[in-house]
Amino acid sequence: MASLSSSNRSVLLYAAPNSNANMLWFGRFHAGDPLIAFSAKGRKIAAVSLLEVTRAQRESVFDEVLNLQVLLEEVRSAQANAGVAEVVALLAKRNGVRSFVVPPDFPAGLYQQLRELGVRVSIGKVPFFPERVIKTEEEIACLRAGNRASAAGFSAVEKILAASEIADGKVLFEGKVLTAERLRRAVEIACLEAGALNVTGIITAPGDQAVDCHCEGTGPIGANQLIVVDIFPRVSASGYFGDMTRTYLKGKASPNQRKIVRTVREAQKLAFSLIKPGARGCDVHKAILEFFDKAGYATGLNKENGFQEGFFHGLGHGVGLDVHEEPSLSARGVEPLEAGMVVTVEPGLYYIGRGACRIEDVVRVTETGCQLISRHPYRWEFA
Amino acid sequence: MASLSSSNRSVLLYAAPNSNANMLWFGRFHAGDPLIAFSAKGRKIAAVSLLEVTRAQRESVFDEVLNLQVLLEEVRSAQANAGVAEVVALLAKRNGVRSFVVPPDFPAGLYQQLRELGVRVSIGKVPFFPERVIKTEEEIACLRAGNRASAAGFSAVEKILAASEIADGKVLFEGKVLTAERLRRAVEIACLEAGALNVTGIITAPGDQAVDCHCEGTGPIGANQLIVVDIFPRVSASGYFGDMTRTYLKGKASPNQRKIVRTVREAQKLAFSLIKPGARGCDVHKAILEFFDKAGYATGLNKENGFQEGFFHGLGHGVGLDVHEEPSLSARGVEPLEAGMVVTVEPGLYYIGRGACRIEDVVRVTETGCQLISRHPYRWEFA
Repeated sequence: MASLSSSNRSVLLYAAPNSNANMLWFGRFHAGDPLIAFSAKGRKIAAVSLLEVTRAQRESVFDEVLNLQVLLEEVRSAQANAGVAEVVALLAKRNGVRSFVVPPDFPAGLYQQLRELGVRVSIGKVPFFPERVIKTEEEIACLRAGNRASAAGFSAVEKILAASEIADGKVLFEGKVLTAERLRRAVEIACLEAGALNVTGIITAPGDQAVDCHCEGTGPIGANQLIVVDIFPRVSASGYFGDMTRTYLKGKASPNQRKIVRTVREAQKLAFSLIKPGARGCDVHKAILEFFDKAGYATGLNKENGFQEGFFHGLGHGVGLDVHEEPSLSARGVEPLEAGMVVTVEPGLYYIGRGACRIEDVVRVTETGCQLISRHPYRWEFA
Repeated sequence: MASLSSSNRSVLLYAAPNSNANMLWFGRFHAGDPLIAFSAKGRKIAAVSLLEVTRAQRESVFDEVLNLQVLLEEVRSAQANAGVAEVVALLAKRNGVRSFVVPPDFPAGLYQQLRELGVRVSIGKVPFFPERVIKTEEEIACLRAGNRASAAGFSAVEKILAASEIADGKVLFEGKVLTAERLRRAVEIACLEAGALNVTGIITAPGDQAVDCHCEGTGPIGANQLIVVDIFPRVSASGYFGDMTRTYLKGKASPNQRKIVRTVREAQKLAFSLIKPGARGCDVHKAILEFFDKAGYATGLNKENGFQEGFFHGLGHGVGLDVHEEPSLSARGVEPLEAGMVVTVEPGLYYIGRGACRIEDVVRVTETGCQLISRHPYRWEFA
């Protein structure tokens, strides 16, 4: 990977750090509006709004922070309608950059303008910063903090389930019918108190709703129903995500429900035993698919109800400053895993009328296998 | 604007709705991962991940939702390494689209691949969907909900300030030194309870910290110090933002502080009287700058301390599915305002050692002037 290192090429980014993980990683600077950032001769340089200059100088890892307003005035003195593209051209010239590499999600408008101005720009690959895929100890600490926030969310759910009562097949909490929305609110507050924000949603989906596995869940939680709770909060201070899932039930589980939950948990343990340097994500995924098949849980389109059923999503994905990043534990994960990579391990089974279960933790690939960097009990039945 | 309407051209988007307002507006579908969306002959068509198909069919306004996995399999049967670009080329052919218009922030990688595949793609302007700039009644209701969440945040801050005590120049709340972080946590929880999430931060900045006007604030809140509280939460159900600012003080204000706060509030009222159809944002901004100048508050670089001081940011900006969108009430706002536009009105004054004050509300431009769509008292001194 060394040959792709950002220090050996001039990269160029134009994005808002809060919604672009490459930008946040590159400058370690949090901001809601777009800024220009690039590297030249191993130095990191940014041009930011007047409103951000002082903060960027203080908080970021940029070696040099320029005032974008001043640069815009400069290029506009030559050409009234000049803008960001002309500023980039000026900065390239000043810093002796002969060509830039930009990430595939670089804005096409700016890309086209730069080419028209004669600035050489080529489009890089994903992952744009291969260094992002191998996590440092500091990043592992941030990811653990994210998972602690997820775990705080589970504790909030468990407290509610434990304190709830069942009457006429309904789950009552504090005298009211317990809903998916009520659980989600409790999770959001618990995560906030743990320093993380659920920027991209939470799943608290009861019964058949969870078969549509990105459905966030709505309405009453039924008694004796599996409830999938997937919590992926972002730590406000660092921008790193947690990502964990537990499946619960309030009441009494049926033998079928117990078998589904037990099988998913066994699949997760099997996956833990297979993840190591050199293993390919696609092979680990396939092993879990086969394990489920042998256990009597087939995957595919159910022609009777039109739903995808079984284990139809990837076993896991990288997690870091993006909640979904490289590498992939799925059919497309054809590259071998390496020590230092971090992936979710989230087997799941989904059948209309029988229920859905997903259990998800996060592991770091070590020299010899993998190590959990998420921690929360697996107790799921609340009588 | 009719000639630019999305129904008369084939637009193409590739983005995650949760972080791309055009995509969320176009499909009214919330998702964290990117999807393909385009228009053809007035119909809106999307190709989404297998995991999102059912949800997109149920929740979105797309006329047709396609399974991206099936399309990928189809293009890969002809060419093993085919991807999203080949799918778009196939969809263009099938739907009789001769050329696409993409927004300037369309990913450059995909743009380049499409051109190499012979798909005609041109880059549109900002605003890409001019319809987004004029808000419907339904959108106004969503924006009001966002501002209600902001107001709930102010109520939480006021409750804390009212319940706090001053001892030795420090502000104590529940026996502890009150901090910017503690205020922020209270605001976050209040917004959550109002159904909104502070995805892009909150500002609770005391004293000189607020002069750096995007500084979120840190550490103890001092007695007799101006505190700028800027709350811009996103309503989870709709994706629309609130955006309001109030400035507070715990203790006793000095005559200078009272004059700053009074002048900023007067500037805001002046701005309300100037905003109407036909007025240009740049002129309204300039009028406020001149008003401050006449009141003895100059704007510019303070050469003694190196800080920008006075009123150095824009008077306001459009707000909708983005927290910053068109139109602008600043030097670059050269187009006349139109009825139905929604803008923040946020004059502010910032001086190192003297304090900072910003007061922000949101208005809708009406046929004859403008109308507040945010509501919260302006009480600021808490003894």
